[in-house]
Amino acid sequence: MGNADYVYPSTNEYRQCAHPVAVPPPQPFFKSFKNSLKETFFPDDPLRQFKNKTPSRKFFLGLQYFLPILEWGPRYTFQFLKSDLISGITIASLAIPQGISYAKLANLPPILGLYSSFIPPLIYAMMGSSRDLAVGTVAVASLLIGSMLGDEVNATENPALYLHLAFTATFFAGLLQASLGLLRLGFIVDFLSHATIVGFMGGAATVVILQQLKGILGLQHFTQSTDIISVLRSVFSQIHEWRWESGVLGAVFLFFLLLSRYFSKKRPKFFWISAMAPLTTVILGSLLVYLTHAEKHGVDVIGNLKKGLNPPSFGDFVFTSSYLTTAVKTGMITGIIALAEGIAVGRSFAMFKHYSIDGNKEMVAIGTMNIVGSCFSCYLTTGPFSRSAVNFNAGCKTAMSNVVMAIAVMFTLLFLTPLFHYTPLVVLSAIIISAMLGLIDYEAAIHLWKVDKFDFVVCMGAYIGVVFASVEVGLVIAVAISVLRLLLFVARPKTFVLGNLPNSTIYRSVEQYPTTNDVPGILILQIDAPIYFANSSYLRERISRWIDEEEDKLKSTGETSLQYVIFNMSAVGNIDTSGISMLEEVKKITDRRGLKLVLANPGAEVMKKLNKSKFIETIGKEWIYLTVGEAVEACNYKLHTCKPDATNEDSQPWNNV
Amino acid sequence: MGNADYVYPSTNEYRQCAHPVAVPPPQPFFKSFKNSLKETFFPDDPLRQFKNKTPSRKFFLGLQYFLPILEWGPRYTFQFLKSDLISGITIASLAIPQGISYAKLANLPPILGLYSSFIPPLIYAMMGSSRDLAVGTVAVASLLIGSMLGDEVNATENPALYLHLAFTATFFAGLLQASLGLLRLGFIVDFLSHATIVGFMGGAATVVILQQLKGILGLQHFTQSTDIISVLRSVFSQIHEWRWESGVLGAVFLFFLLLSRYFSKKRPKFFWISAMAPLTTVILGSLLVYLTHAEKHGVDVIGNLKKGLNPPSFGDFVFTSSYLTTAVKTGMITGIIALAEGIAVGRSFAMFKHYSIDGNKEMVAIGTMNIVGSCFSCYLTTGPFSRSAVNFNAGCKTAMSNVVMAIAVMFTLLFLTPLFHYTPLVVLSAIIISAMLGLIDYEAAIHLWKVDKFDFVVCMGAYIGVVFASVEVGLVIAVAISVLRLLLFVARPKTFVLGNLPNSTIYRSVEQYPTTNDVPGILILQIDAPIYFANSSYLRERISRWIDEEEDKLKSTGETSLQYVIFNMSAVGNIDTSGISMLEEVKKITDRRGLKLVLANPGAEVMKKLNKSKFIETIGKEWIYLTVGEAVEACNYKLHTCKPDATNEDSQPWNNV
Repeated sequence: MGNADYVYPSTNEYRQCAHPVAVPPPQPFFKSFKNSLKETFFPDDPLRQFKNKTPSRKFFLGLQYFLPILEWGPRYTFQFLKSDLISGITIASLAIPQGISYAKLANLPPILGLYSSFIPPLIYAMMGSSRDLAVGTVAVASLLIGSMLGDEVNATENPALYLHLAFTATFFAGLLQASLGLLRLGFIVDFLSHATIVGFMGGAATVVILQQLKGILGLQHFTQSTDIISVLRSVFSQIHEWRWESGVLGAVFLFFLLLSRYFSKKRPKFFWISAMAPLTTVILGSLLVYLTHAEKHGVDVIGNLKKGLNPPSFGDFVFTSSYLTTAVKTGMITGIIALAEGIAVGRSFAMFKHYSIDGNKEMVAIGTMNIVGSCFSCYLTTGPFSRSAVNFNAGCKTAMSNVVMAIAVMFTLLFLTPLFHYTPLVVLSAIIISAMLGLIDYEAAIHLWKVDKFDFVVCMGAYIGVVFASVEVGLVIAVAISVLRLLLFVARPKTFVLGNLPNSTIYRSVEQYPTTNDVPGILILQIDAPIYFANSSYLRERISRWIDEEEDKLKSTGETSLQYVIFNMSAVGNIDTSGISMLEEVKKITDRRGLKLVLANPGAEVMKKLNKSKFIETIGKEWIYLTVGEAVEACNYKLHTCKPDATNEDSQPWNNV
Repeated sequence: MGNADYVYPSTNEYRQCAHPVAVPPPQPFFKSFKNSLKETFFPDDPLRQFKNKTPSRKFFLGLQYFLPILEWGPRYTFQFLKSDLISGITIASLAIPQGISYAKLANLPPILGLYSSFIPPLIYAMMGSSRDLAVGTVAVASLLIGSMLGDEVNATENPALYLHLAFTATFFAGLLQASLGLLRLGFIVDFLSHATIVGFMGGAATVVILQQLKGILGLQHFTQSTDIISVLRSVFSQIHEWRWESGVLGAVFLFFLLLSRYFSKKRPKFFWISAMAPLTTVILGSLLVYLTHAEKHGVDVIGNLKKGLNPPSFGDFVFTSSYLTTAVKTGMITGIIALAEGIAVGRSFAMFKHYSIDGNKEMVAIGTMNIVGSCFSCYLTTGPFSRSAVNFNAGCKTAMSNVVMAIAVMFTLLFLTPLFHYTPLVVLSAIIISAMLGLIDYEAAIHLWKVDKFDFVVCMGAYIGVVFASVEVGLVIAVAISVLRLLLFVARPKTFVLGNLPNSTIYRSVEQYPTTNDVPGILILQIDAPIYFANSSYLRERISRWIDEEEDKLKSTGETSLQYVIFNMSAVGNIDTSGISMLEEVKKITDRRGLKLVLANPGAEVMKKLNKSKFIETIGKEWIYLTVGEAVEACNYKLHTCKPDATNEDSQPWNNV
């Protein structure tokens, strides 16, 4: 790096040609408080459409806001109905076997899976703003309900209490989801980053697959734990109990399901093959068992399913029992997880089709469908990715496809449940495994490693936590690492030296732009984060070290000694009182060393606070410039024209301390 | 705001005259990992002085690093000794009554206060890097020990166990402090912001003063709780038990102490008046009681104090008892609080005298003095503000003043303890109240309110939490609000529109600089925080709204329609994979609306990740500019010369999705 040549303005008062740095006009406290509240909770300004409308129009718009069906319903066409009919029937064929499988995963009666595909989709069709979301139960939340409630109540010993706890947990999950939406706290879901969800979903899928070893191998006894070590120990400690009939059947069906998925993936036109495959395996499996009487030779079957629609369950809530806390805790955790999946799925498909969904509105919709669902024998539902993808591929146009699915499930509940009597459990396990394999997104993990190592650590933290400890532990690890990253960003901000880009007044990081030139006698530092209590000590140390190093370097090369230190404040979004104290201390340090401290481009918030704390007076208004270029020009001007005065004019203020 | 006029370059290829934005050269993963670890844990580069030295020199420097006395000892002069002798005796006269008072506050035998002013100062004199810190016990930590241990063990019913728990807690506090220093985790203390400490100290002082009502009013029964409601209820429920003799004595001594402090504050030369005042009140009080036999008329006295030096206590640690967790918890919390006070005090006085202290080294020193202290009947010590201020005012030169104080205390322990037999407890209460009143820094709180409302909320959260609930609750509230603020900064970053400063190529916030001009057809947005998972949803919403609002505004005024959206990325310090997805989504949104997305000045980290994730290819390398000015010029050039092509050349990429 060489030294650039400068041209200095010929006027004696350099300052006049520089731009002044503005202190933003003072705002009344309550106005700025109101503004920041609005930015925090209403970033999308949902009330904008209500402006300048008559009261009756406002009421109708408000109703439309909560019931989007009033908006798209009147515009619904026969063309739409045809598409929705096809996609609705397709997802119903997936919903029935998946519903039964996931209910088994939660240790709940299989029929609940069907109940849960009937009421909630109807509610969502009215309230949801996504056109592609297909409502139903999900594997991960089902597993979580099974493991969390299972810790307190044994599902086989006390099935009634367990069932009632599941309803209560679903109720609280819905309540939490709807409240988050109503209170505009949807951003809590944002703290589950993409990396967290990739790792978490992969881990949960691994755990769910491991659980299926019970069904595939036809084991009677199995561990209650979900971690990989307990499960593998449980599987391999009873090798003599493995049932080969069950294993072979499972392997054959799994192969068929994977093959159909592979085929559909290759040719998207044949998406319906993989969509229909689960129902096909159920029918084939049931027929096989019925014809060979395999249920008497070690192949477990579902058995009797009650005919009829959802019985009411709001009388079953256990609000008074000592298990209430378990139900609340389970509801909170599963509710958040289910919400995150539903919102992410809705948002992804909205992105594809170029419409946008309102996260908070979606939360209210998902929450309401769970609250209502819990009153009618449904357990936790959301918008599962697999089912929504099938819905999307089948060409659904509106949420009406959910209604079609619900009607198909209703028909099944009323007339077809006896047909599932001979359905072998191993088929259900094969369906679950095949669905779960799609959730282990190792390619996304590789992408994370390539682009952002920290995100990869978050992802692996979630995966390892879920697989080796438990679902909750994995989640806590991932969120903790993610939050730690945010804190580290603030606690250890990047600081770097700027240099002059040749033939310009632009100053950029010397590391990023190796062609930049040093500016003799001036050290330009950029601070890349807000100056807060969490980093003020660090910044003081780091800035001192930059100055030390620069002085050492200049001494060793025998160049002009250091005279000015310029802080580029462009990236300092805010400052607090600890940060201001830090600046005051740095000012003392530079004064003591005979250096002049100069600020460049402090933002509105920073200027406001520096002004209020009188730091602008301490440093001198004439030492704050609008750009680094102007600051350097001014320093150079002083350095070359009035050197003896420049460093002494108001130095050594520590005598007054 | 009007429209500025532009001059466009006449070359057809505008791009050639703009500066390219550099992607930083790729670094091997382990090198960059090592660098960021070093920046996180060794920002002050402590090993710098060891470079290029012989092994024996390195060893000596290392020894000096841990024992700074080896550094300043050889340079110690007789002149220094004279100063240190005066200041040492002055602080000893303060240390003796304060030590006894604070030990009573912790429900420990009064003699422990003297023990704790003997061994720890000697250790600190060897290891500490501050020249002004005076070692001793502190009120807040003493109160905390009293209330936290008191929850588990009653100090009057089981004094031996209580005492042993106090030693064990001190041992763990020291262990924690030294480990934090050795593991370079000193930045944990930074999370106690200045605002937190102001509120916390004020709250603790209030609580301590309320506790003294027991001593002043001569009450026999008193609540174990520390919150204001319990204490006032306890005081006013037994009005008939108040002792007027005790009250009058207390009020008189308190008045005397406050008067002496007021006088010393007015004339700093007479600092020794307020420094000597506590010992004077003790002597006067004791004489008065001795002469009037007031101890038989409702004035409680200290009673017998054992003669002799600290007995060893390392055999008393309760490592195996069921109370171990209590001791560990108490040690951790009081250790952190004491550390924060010690570091802050050391740093403040170092700032005054223009030397710097090393936080991590201080932690090792304070930790070691507590570990050693706990083995010799001392409880938790640190560098109290009041005592250090007296030390500073008395003109101490080095840590030798601590040695002088320790010798004076040793002399007291060996020969003078019987003199304290008749010291009335009410005098001790008056001393504590007078010291605590100085800790309620309402002026600092007013300053916080003026400069930074959020810091004020943190401060009041700490104060109210401590006063109305408990010390721990106050601390947790303050730290939680502080951390929430950091998270909010990232979760809800400021975004604002930039405009052109007249007669320049500088672009700044239109709110901060109302003289800026709009650039027709171009929306320039600045994002003021890193783009992370926590804000990517918010930013997507907010950016969409900015575009909506700008288009609405242009539509209503009939100006040129919007063509370009420029993001100024100067303040975006980093981006993660969620942030990149957000940019990809925004790119799709702008494409769909026929707008062109342009980036200005992305930093090194951001460019690295955009490059790895191929976003640079998605947006097109020619749409990334080094400055906002260049980006605007390029857009204007395209807008005015090749308009029909500009928006169509590579739009509608969603057809390929």
